[in-house]
Amino acid sequence: MSRIDGRTPDQLRPVTIQRGWSKHAEGSVLISFGDTKVFCTASVTEGVPRWRKGTGEGWVTAEYSMLPRSTNTRGDRESVRGKIGGRTHEISRLIGRSLRAVIDFKALGENTIVLDCDVLQADGGTRTAAITGAYVALADAITWAQNKKLIKHGRQPLTGTVSAVSVGIVGGIPLLDLCYEEDVRAETDMNVVCTGDGRFVEVQGTAEAEPFARDELNALLDLAVGGCATLDTAQREALARTLEETG
Amino acid sequence: MSRIDGRTPDQLRPVTIQRGWSKHAEGSVLISFGDTKVFCTASVTEGVPRWRKGTGEGWVTAEYSMLPRSTNTRGDRESVRGKIGGRTHEISRLIGRSLRAVIDFKALGENTIVLDCDVLQADGGTRTAAITGAYVALADAITWAQNKKLIKHGRQPLTGTVSAVSVGIVGGIPLLDLCYEEDVRAETDMNVVCTGDGRFVEVQGTAEAEPFARDELNALLDLAVGGCATLDTAQREALARTLEETG
Amino acid sequence: MSRIDGRTPDQLRPVTIQRGWSKHAEGSVLISFGDTKVFCTASVTEGVPRWRKGTGEGWVTAEYSMLPRSTNTRGDRESVRGKIGGRTHEISRLIGRSLRAVIDFKALGENTIVLDCDVLQADGGTRTAAITGAYVALADAITWAQNKKLIKHGRQPLTGTVSAVSVGIVGGIPLLDLCYEEDVRAETDMNVVCTGDGRFVEVQGTAEAEPFARDELNALLDLAVGGCATLDTAQREALARTLEETG
Amino acid sequence: MSRIDGRTPDQLRPVTIQRGWSKHAEGSVLISFGDTKVFCTASVTEGVPRWRKGTGEGWVTAEYSMLPRSTNTRGDRESVRGKIGGRTHEISRLIGRSLRAVIDFKALGENTIVLDCDVLQADGGTRTAAITGAYVALADAITWAQNKKLIKHGRQPLTGTVSAVSVGIVGGIPLLDLCYEEDVRAETDMNVVCTGDGRFVEVQGTAEAEPFARDELNALLDLAVGGCATLDTAQREALARTLEETG
Amino acid sequence: MSRIDGRTPDQLRPVTIQRGWSKHAEGSVLISFGDTKVFCTASVTEGVPRWRKGTGEGWVTAEYSMLPRSTNTRGDRESVRGKIGGRTHEISRLIGRSLRAVIDFKALGENTIVLDCDVLQADGGTRTAAITGAYVALADAITWAQNKKLIKHGRQPLTGTVSAVSVGIVGGIPLLDLCYEEDVRAETDMNVVCTGDGRFVEVQGTAEAEPFARDELNALLDLAVGGCATLDTAQREALARTLEETG
Amino acid sequence: MSRIDGRTPDQLRPVTIQRGWSKHAEGSVLISFGDTKVFCTASVTEGVPRWRKGTGEGWVTAEYSMLPRSTNTRGDRESVRGKIGGRTHEISRLIGRSLRAVIDFKALGENTIVLDCDVLQADGGTRTAAITGAYVALADAITWAQNKKLIKHGRQPLTGTVSAVSVGIVGGIPLLDLCYEEDVRAETDMNVVCTGDGRFVEVQGTAEAEPFARDELNALLDLAVGGCATLDTAQREALARTLEETG
Repeated sequence: MSRIDGRTPDQLRPVTIQRGWSKHAEGSVLISFGDTKVFCTASVTEGVPRWRKGTGEGWVTAEYSMLPRSTNTRGDRESVRGKIGGRTHEISRLIGRSLRAVIDFKALGENTIVLDCDVLQADGGTRTAAITGAYVALADAITWAQNKKLIKHGRQPLTGTVSAVSVGIVGGIPLLDLCYEEDVRAETDMNVVCTGDGRFVEVQGTAEAEPFARDELNALLDLAVGGCATLDTAQREALARTLEETG
Repeated sequence: MSRIDGRTPDQLRPVTIQRGWSKHAEGSVLISFGDTKVFCTASVTEGVPRWRKGTGEGWVTAEYSMLPRSTNTRGDRESVRGKIGGRTHEISRLIGRSLRAVIDFKALGENTIVLDCDVLQADGGTRTAAITGAYVALADAITWAQNKKLIKHGRQPLTGTVSAVSVGIVGGIPLLDLCYEEDVRAETDMNVVCTGDGRFVEVQGTAEAEPFARDELNALLDLAVGGCATLDTAQREALARTLEETG
Repeated sequence: MSRIDGRTPDQLRPVTIQRGWSKHAEGSVLISFGDTKVFCTASVTEGVPRWRKGTGEGWVTAEYSMLPRSTNTRGDRESVRGKIGGRTHEISRLIGRSLRAVIDFKALGENTIVLDCDVLQADGGTRTAAITGAYVALADAITWAQNKKLIKHGRQPLTGTVSAVSVGIVGGIPLLDLCYEEDVRAETDMNVVCTGDGRFVEVQGTAEAEPFARDELNALLDLAVGGCATLDTAQREALARTLEETG
Repeated sequence: MSRIDGRTPDQLRPVTIQRGWSKHAEGSVLISFGDTKVFCTASVTEGVPRWRKGTGEGWVTAEYSMLPRSTNTRGDRESVRGKIGGRTHEISRLIGRSLRAVIDFKALGENTIVLDCDVLQADGGTRTAAITGAYVALADAITWAQNKKLIKHGRQPLTGTVSAVSVGIVGGIPLLDLCYEEDVRAETDMNVVCTGDGRFVEVQGTAEAEPFARDELNALLDLAVGGCATLDTAQREALARTLEETG
Repeated sequence: MSRIDGRTPDQLRPVTIQRGWSKHAEGSVLISFGDTKVFCTASVTEGVPRWRKGTGEGWVTAEYSMLPRSTNTRGDRESVRGKIGGRTHEISRLIGRSLRAVIDFKALGENTIVLDCDVLQADGGTRTAAITGAYVALADAITWAQNKKLIKHGRQPLTGTVSAVSVGIVGGIPLLDLCYEEDVRAETDMNVVCTGDGRFVEVQGTAEAEPFARDELNALLDLAVGGCATLDTAQREALARTLEETG
Repeated sequence: MSRIDGRTPDQLRPVTIQRGWSKHAEGSVLISFGDTKVFCTASVTEGVPRWRKGTGEGWVTAEYSMLPRSTNTRGDRESVRGKIGGRTHEISRLIGRSLRAVIDFKALGENTIVLDCDVLQADGGTRTAAITGAYVALADAITWAQNKKLIKHGRQPLTGTVSAVSVGIVGGIPLLDLCYEEDVRAETDMNVVCTGDGRFVEVQGTAEAEPFARDELNALLDLAVGGCATLDTAQREALARTLEETG
């Protein structure tokens, strides 16, 4: 049985990672998972939030947002409504936690890096694309800060790599990297964030229709671990290329 | 090795479920998991939100909040700050999804049930206590609505039972139902929502310090499934008692 | 003529005052006036708001709120609406002023005590129950602070006691301590805050239907002074008991 | 003993009431109590708020605000801060209740009158000046609506007159109509709203320093009733003059 | 062809400028352009916003607002809606920029002057009346600050004078100082801010219906320059009079 | 004398206009003026805002926003701050007015088109690039709506073309299309919106340092008219190409 777009169940959509997409940001990436496109920038500032001052440790945080017409029908701007919705809050927090999982805050020193992940076009998996792209922007920003001597060389603030993918059960079949049409029809939906060594940073599974059984959970985790390994390779290849500013 | 409060790793804190704690609400429960106390009310109204009108289907939603001094140091009221924080949003959404997983919306008819879960005292596991207590309040509210003929008898809107528990790895040991002191020190923290037949509604695992391996994940899931089975029994026993209004 | 619930016109509803209802707060009380139940906590912090720094004087303030389903029909949460309503503001200010009337700020030193009064169940008189209960929580918090040496012994920050009761004219008859059903039908509604020596801290009378005459005002004040004397006794008895933490 | 500005204890400040101060509003008044100046407009619209539709009854409401530099030091605009303060809410509600006390809503028909009371210059007693002036604007607006046949002639929507004054105890002496300097030093502060026949619509007394005794309360009420009688005369005289638009 | 109110195309409405209209503000003006009345106050405070501290330079800013019934139909208060509309923002910024154009910030020293422009009655041209009146209030506030030695004598903070007027094309005819009725029908609407020497501080022209040609733009600018010259004279005459407090 | 980037005073930066940049929006453009990049989408919905219903006329509106790291230093998100700043409001209104100037609302029928202009990278002239790009997105959206028969053929809703450019005086020299570095140093800054036939839709000139004279204004207008003519050609060429979806 083949999927809407002809993929096999364990196949990712085409992934592209373009670095240097902003002339201003210390790290910037335009990542696409198929038709999902997220623009990720990493902004470095000296100093840390008040509650962290004097600890010698840095901070990494993230903000996620969707452009109003990134989706099939236009959504209201959260700035116009005057408040951030629950989903936006939840995803921003998830991205921040995922990246902090591979940061040595002592090595980062009292510097703050903010990851902005703005969805330009949505077709399912925006949060996982955001995490995967934000990691690359973060890596570039850290290199920038090391070159500027904001971060001392010798000890690497990045303790590992991190990527993320969605998995789900659609029509009883576990599938990797759901596009929007699949996501809408999924009985179970799971987002998994893995480190490059195959361990878990986040596992968030939700029964959309039917509760799911332990063996279904296991099948989904297997797919996700495989998908993240592929994304890990894509990140490494992107970072291995010479950075040319495109801005 | 015994825990802070003398429990074994796979032991829940004492659980109490008091029904009929409000004279106004259609269902109401004061639930405690040890020193964590959550007041859950279920409010039934005829009709559904605009986007659901005319579908013949009902709706269930939830709002979670902590009283300002439910915690060790007083927190600002979100009403005074003028906005709801990301954590509150996230937990409210989690509770709503968990309860909707055991609802047959057609059988509910065009009625709305709102679950309010207000934490009176917090000592870890407030969201899991909230889900577990809200289920009981929901069940009472549905019975009330059936008695009032708002919901037709014959078909049961509740398709199963649901409860939730936290698990985590503390000092390398997987533990069930973390209290606050354990939660703060956990390397990995997971909230699991199960149905009475042992399937999963939500699995939310987060690496707080180190990424976690597949076998650690499995150990945590085993603990959680066991804990939920015990909670399921406590819910059934509470619902088997005669409801006496305490308000 | 007897009242809805069989009371005489000058009779309070049953009053209960449970201390130590929170394991976290420095003072905490669950007070009930009949079916009206308010949970009052007193939180002590060292230091004072910016505008008071360096004066050597402390500060006492209060926040009042109703749980969404404390009332017969569910109300929206003010945190969700994003703003506090006029009634909430007004009552929070009233509670704060009432307690400050019996505080010697010099004796309190540069400490702040915040009283949170959350209505768990409403049946009329929530603001007067809140003041009466908050006084007891405040007294416990001051004792706590004296034991912790935050407040120096020798001079008592409490200069008196304070309690409050509602009175009103219903069907032409002046009544003490209106329940909700009476309150709705009252032609005149008054909240009176008294010190233990029978003097007034606040008198707030409102004509709901007809303006009221001077002799009606006098009859209401007589009832209120009598009611506050009874409440004063209840407060003293509650504070005379040994505090056992129930949290 | 004479007062700061040479008045006797039972003497009002000079009161002026200018009608027709706006070319747009259906009723408009610039009222001054000494240096306190409040601009009151009454706006008539056909129809009533949703919760009142179909009752055949009208509605009257009020909004109070202070210009940022109406006071000695500039205050922030509430529109800029994005929320209305407790004091503003409280006074707006007081003004609305006071005027509704002399309205026959059936006679008003399904029309709404909004009173806007904007303080141009503050020197104590802004809320009482606002009520006194708003009554006159309201009376003009009702006449306008009767002339426009929005309100049927035959039955008068105004069932009486209403005015308000502040009283307080300063240095142990009960005083009428406190200016700002007196207000700041008052031990007790009371606002009293009376109808023209000497009955009470609102009595709001607050102990600012010491609790007040019953005989002090009586002395303040005596002063207030006298002051309101004088204001009632000033209102009648203003309304007896021909209205010339000054806008 | 004569205009609605009998003026010639190049004729201003009657302009009045009353100084000293507030007893509290350091400068205050009630200005009228025909039926448009704006109350302008200038508030001086020592110190500057954080981003300007230590520069030795002062700051001037402005806030514009309309009273809810300054217009023909009542508008909602922005404080009640909880946010400031785009138009209000835009005009506040315009007034601030216009006045800063004639300020030498070094000569002002680290002092801040806030101009509040509140429209009491609107009949077109409220922003231009506000700028013209605010200049006079600003001049008085600077004199006050010089007398108080907050600003050192010797160097004048005001580097010129500034006034503003609206112009527009109505029925094909360029007109000066549009009243509301003309403004509504204008095909092109322009606000022009000039210094006393006839140069431009702001030119804001908008095609309301048809785009406008270069020669129309020139005709409008000619009218505006003439109008501002007349306003400049009115400002000088007002400032030449002795200031008598009217508050 | 040559400019920072080697341009002559009357030379635009390189302009690129890519259509079909979104797979969801009915019209979409990525426009760049040098390093300034704005993503413009046009969203068509049937129906109009409430105040326009039943008129047979359509509506066009716009929202402008900057991504937080579109600028050299990261700015706070307006959604996070909970309110839209004055500058954002002002530019959104400007874009909306500019496009409405070339729309025949009767021909559009009761349809609404929302233009979202999100700045991906800022280097001066973001509002003028937004207007120029939004026009092209609007044209594509109208063609789409005509093909979908939402808009009837026969009468063209677009009555002309519109583009915009900034001009300014830097170091005494009038320059076309300022980049950020020039903009910061400009003594006078002007944004001009022209139709394709060389008439004006908006002229907004501001003296940043010195007031500007009439001949300077004229020199700026000459430059702007020339720049808009070039932009008009670029728009026509872009629209002449076949639209290929790039999303």
